[in-house]
Amino acid sequence: MKYYAGIDLGGTFIKCGIIDEEGKLIAKDKIPTEKENGFQYIANKMSDLALSLANKMNVKLHGIGIGSPGTVNSQKGVIVYSNNLDWDNVPLAELIKQRINLPVKVTNDANAAAIGEQFCGAGKEYSDMILITLGTGVGSGIVIEGKLFEGYRSAGAEIGHSVIHVGGEKCTCGRRGCFEAYASATALIRQTRRAMERNHNSAMWRLCDRLENVNGRTAFDGLRDGDKTAKRVVNTYIRYLAEGIANLCNEFRPQAVLLGGGICAEGDTLLRPLKKLVNERLFGGTKYAPVQLLTASLGNDAGVYGAARLVMVSC
Amino acid sequence: MKYYAGIDLGGTFIKCGIIDEEGKLIAKDKIPTEKENGFQYIANKMSDLALSLANKMNVKLHGIGIGSPGTVNSQKGVIVYSNNLDWDNVPLAELIKQRINLPVKVTNDANAAAIGEQFCGAGKEYSDMILITLGTGVGSGIVIEGKLFEGYRSAGAEIGHSVIHVGGEKCTCGRRGCFEAYASATALIRQTRRAMERNHNSAMWRLCDRLENVNGRTAFDGLRDGDKTAKRVVNTYIRYLAEGIANLCNEFRPQAVLLGGGICAEGDTLLRPLKKLVNERLFGGTKYAPVQLLTASLGNDAGVYGAARLVMVSC
Repeated sequence: MKYYAGIDLGGTFIKCGIIDEEGKLIAKDKIPTEKENGFQYIANKMSDLALSLANKMNVKLHGIGIGSPGTVNSQKGVIVYSNNLDWDNVPLAELIKQRINLPVKVTNDANAAAIGEQFCGAGKEYSDMILITLGTGVGSGIVIEGKLFEGYRSAGAEIGHSVIHVGGEKCTCGRRGCFEAYASATALIRQTRRAMERNHNSAMWRLCDRLENVNGRTAFDGLRDGDKTAKRVVNTYIRYLAEGIANLCNEFRPQAVLLGGGICAEGDTLLRPLKKLVNERLFGGTKYAPVQLLTASLGNDAGVYGAARLVMVSC
Repeated sequence: MKYYAGIDLGGTFIKCGIIDEEGKLIAKDKIPTEKENGFQYIANKMSDLALSLANKMNVKLHGIGIGSPGTVNSQKGVIVYSNNLDWDNVPLAELIKQRINLPVKVTNDANAAAIGEQFCGAGKEYSDMILITLGTGVGSGIVIEGKLFEGYRSAGAEIGHSVIHVGGEKCTCGRRGCFEAYASATALIRQTRRAMERNHNSAMWRLCDRLENVNGRTAFDGLRDGDKTAKRVVNTYIRYLAEGIANLCNEFRPQAVLLGGGICAEGDTLLRPLKKLVNERLFGGTKYAPVQLLTASLGNDAGVYGAARLVMVSC
């Protein structure tokens, strides 16, 4: 049996898992990133974490895969730019190889999560799938014929920055009306706050007395409490989400779209109406080329699985 | 030298070209489709046209490629559905093979045109490109790493049916706010007519005395005449086009986007402002992964070249 390390590099923590070629996670651990110490220090820590975990399990590593935030040139293993880590053109694969002479693969963290879900999670049965993560932003990873699709110089798959409402909400990217500005958890919180400001009788004020405390669950909780304002917020949010997902389906026509992020804990309250709206918007209907809409299943481990898988298939 | 037939099957004409493996078109011809005679008759006519052209040029055919309107299952060579031909599950590849025992490949006509441009046209230098055709609708073909991208069961690449304006213009597909409803030639004509109705002093009334006579050039001609209303129509149209193209760039990140269709005859009047707007909207800017914006160069022959290319690479 061959073993691979999968590393999920974040701004706060470095998570590492040891995964065998059948996709079994045999060990995992996490340590603080301490990004203030710079990329050489972090690269060394990542290498050492992977090695020590493998040693602890008494297995030999065959490669190291890494999911990193930011724009990653996965061909060259270079972090082109990461706002989160404050990195600019860091040759991460090279730095790791200098410390451990093993194959190293690097990709964007959202891409790694998509590959993880396809390898061991809810995307297992689909060679063509998209993972959409609803968090601070809208992240995504696209798998086509079992392989990661990243676009020219790995700069594609930025599905959050596709405009669904020309001239609409300002997005962090500078455009107006991006999918991310309507469908991220941040967007849902903004939509909830605005509705509460307009409706001082909303039951949401009982669930959450201050606007600062509004989170991605507030509107869903209000809906379950029978609050009309909350219901409108949820319906509008799901409608935007459906438009963006249907767009992706008509463009990429995957076999499945997986949803990740905290909002997915809402389960069928989210999924049932969402499926209906997406299906109504599929070009050519649902009969010939149906698209399954599912929740992701690996949670925060998806990136670790995917990073390991990435190096596994490359060597 | 090996020779291939490329056939562009349309509702009115069947066009056929004989193309060598270096991409030289050595002969072409067209005949009426006579779609009222049914698919078996048309399949026979297509076969005979290809054979007679090859015989005339005294070359031996190595395969036949076909670009067809509608939804095409290119793996099976079946026209799943074509409104234009009134076909439903027609096994076109099989029908042709029964008459001529040669490799046959079938794809959607927009896909064939994209492959044609990439093989012999303006897309020659790009392994990753998208051809967008602005006509009655917005057609597209997507090439990734030199290969046609069609999505699950060839049902993807329907970029015209991606919403850029939630709740906006009604589209022929049933959704509201599709890219096609803002960026097709049909949409431009609608936008021009509305502006003329609102502005009876517009110079466009001199260019075109009746609304029925408005075409895709009317607003551009008005702009060149210094008419403010026409200028607004053109600016708004280009803005919509830019939003949709930028969306595709952020999702697919091709190296080049090629524009086809009659509107491209406007040249720099269209392209210069369009490039600026698209570049301003590229995620991560234009430096790391720039996208070239070009006009297609093969015109109506693109589909013939592409259909031939498709069978060429498959055998």
